[in-house]
Amino acid sequence: MTALTGCSHLSSSIGSDKNSISVSEVGSFHIGGRQVTLSGLPTREIVFTPGSPPFKVNPNGDFEAEQMYVQYIKQSNPKGKYPMLMWHGGGLSGVTWESKPDGGAGWQQFFLKAGHDVYVSDAVERGRASWSRYPEIFKSEPFFRTKKEAWELFRIGPADSYQTDASKRVKYPDTQFNVAAFDQFGKQGIPRWATNDVATQNAYNELVQKMCPCIIVVHSQGGNFAFNAALKAPDKIKAVIAVEPSGAPDPSKVNLSALKSVPHLFVWGDYIDRTPFWKGVSNNLSNYSKALKDQGGTSDWLDLPAQGITGNSHMLMMDKNSDLIAGRIQSWIEKQGLTR
Amino acid sequence: MTALTGCSHLSSSIGSDKNSISVSEVGSFHIGGRQVTLSGLPTREIVFTPGSPPFKVNPNGDFEAEQMYVQYIKQSNPKGKYPMLMWHGGGLSGVTWESKPDGGAGWQQFFLKAGHDVYVSDAVERGRASWSRYPEIFKSEPFFRTKKEAWELFRIGPADSYQTDASKRVKYPDTQFNVAAFDQFGKQGIPRWATNDVATQNAYNELVQKMCPCIIVVHSQGGNFAFNAALKAPDKIKAVIAVEPSGAPDPSKVNLSALKSVPHLFVWGDYIDRTPFWKGVSNNLSNYSKALKDQGGTSDWLDLPAQGITGNSHMLMMDKNSDLIAGRIQSWIEKQGLTR
Repeated sequence: MTALTGCSHLSSSIGSDKNSISVSEVGSFHIGGRQVTLSGLPTREIVFTPGSPPFKVNPNGDFEAEQMYVQYIKQSNPKGKYPMLMWHGGGLSGVTWESKPDGGAGWQQFFLKAGHDVYVSDAVERGRASWSRYPEIFKSEPFFRTKKEAWELFRIGPADSYQTDASKRVKYPDTQFNVAAFDQFGKQGIPRWATNDVATQNAYNELVQKMCPCIIVVHSQGGNFAFNAALKAPDKIKAVIAVEPSGAPDPSKVNLSALKSVPHLFVWGDYIDRTPFWKGVSNNLSNYSKALKDQGGTSDWLDLPAQGITGNSHMLMMDKNSDLIAGRIQSWIEKQGLTR
Repeated sequence: MTALTGCSHLSSSIGSDKNSISVSEVGSFHIGGRQVTLSGLPTREIVFTPGSPPFKVNPNGDFEAEQMYVQYIKQSNPKGKYPMLMWHGGGLSGVTWESKPDGGAGWQQFFLKAGHDVYVSDAVERGRASWSRYPEIFKSEPFFRTKKEAWELFRIGPADSYQTDASKRVKYPDTQFNVAAFDQFGKQGIPRWATNDVATQNAYNELVQKMCPCIIVVHSQGGNFAFNAALKAPDKIKAVIAVEPSGAPDPSKVNLSALKSVPHLFVWGDYIDRTPFWKGVSNNLSNYSKALKDQGGTSDWLDLPAQGITGNSHMLMMDKNSDLIAGRIQSWIEKQGLTR
């Protein structure tokens, strides 16, 4: 993989669809979760398919709840020494890593073509992981992200720059996000709960036990789950690549010494300083990264604007220069000795 | 693909993971749906990630709703003349077609290895298609399928044979379903609504316009959507393979003449006659199939028990003999001249 040493023209040719991948196996599984039994709820009668007989629905009974979903593509001759697990952020699903909203190749395909076995997951409550009746099983109401929140929180434009009329939305002039595909991106949004963190962490920890040693590539809300998973099983995790993680354990309250052997890479886009929320997040994570280094571990901080790569939104993996950033990550992985 | 002429020992070797697939592209997209605006709902404040700053949630604003999700794997040299679209049934998602609950290779991999470009979708409201706030956007409450309903409706055991304690569940003695993996199958369940059929049909129709000419492989509740999609765009659909479809248009009310050029295959498992619901469904579908033939079209009825293949549940694609059944379907596809 010497061709991938961070050069954008090389990495983009590898991210293209010119090369084929020799795939040995595609599949998926659910992991984690538990059986839950409901009782005492009233019955209903319904016709599910036009033309089919009516059907009595009794909502009481046994359900599986709090599992997560993992889909994999394995290669005949992977160049990565370990599988790559891709964990998405809040209000989203594994679709984050697939094709970009504008139809361009996403990081799933990039890292497949770079030679990794790739495992894309949907966290508990998201996408194909499924969700459960509330408040009986999930303990609160879900949240649905508005397109305004996505536009501004994901730093496609500044505060109060979103409009319902797409032609009136104000973007950062040099944004790398393809704003023509923003409404398409809106279709990727998945409702989320604030009360499922324990179940989510448990499912991720189970996944680590099943699939690792591995490399974790994680985005945004997923960051905190990945850091905790690494703390729980430092021997199992060969690297954590945290793309704009939104939270981390408090280094003053957690013993990070076990992470000395787990190299971390933090990747940050543009406009962080203009956004109070992200400035706060970035400060927290900077402290976490420093604490990792204080333990003698590897913790690298890839500040893209500081490297002259400007205009990136929070959704780096969907931005126009996504291949270039993936190429930098691939180079870092190679530098850690994690490829053959 | 002459090796796949319905011989189980040959088809199972092709369904194994011994052969690699030369994949040119993997990706996904959302299709269909519309922007919806909510207003007048109260705001809430929440911390999404432990350690991150609190965040004010305003549920009012613009959302994308009623889209569906489609994931594809394209081959360098497909042997199928047209892409294969795989549409799932009720209370489930595209996971239906992926690995079996016991970890065995599913039909997605089987048909990839048989040479088809495969497009697995999640219908509106399911899985990665996402779902919307109700009753403000979706117009009713969702339904959650119990494991008892799945066990009995999907004909793994007779009526009242399900127990919470897995060791006490009564299965059909010769069931092909791997009952040790039944709780794992329960994790695949996805809530569903009875009020989204129009949006679902619209999204499927859009998918047909985008991706076809194509072959549709459809299960259960999806059947009715596929039949209507074929009626809407008969020139676009080269075959409909309906695996235990649960409904169809009423042939006395619909002009089926346009389907003369669209070959149909119906596939049925075991224990239909012992289950009043499925007996009713099967009778309806038998009438539909006869009406297709009355138009001069091809409509084949693969009754597995009548062919000596016994013990199949409603979830044929997950049963132990799933490769054998897929092999029969592949043979039928070849017979229609749909492979190179």
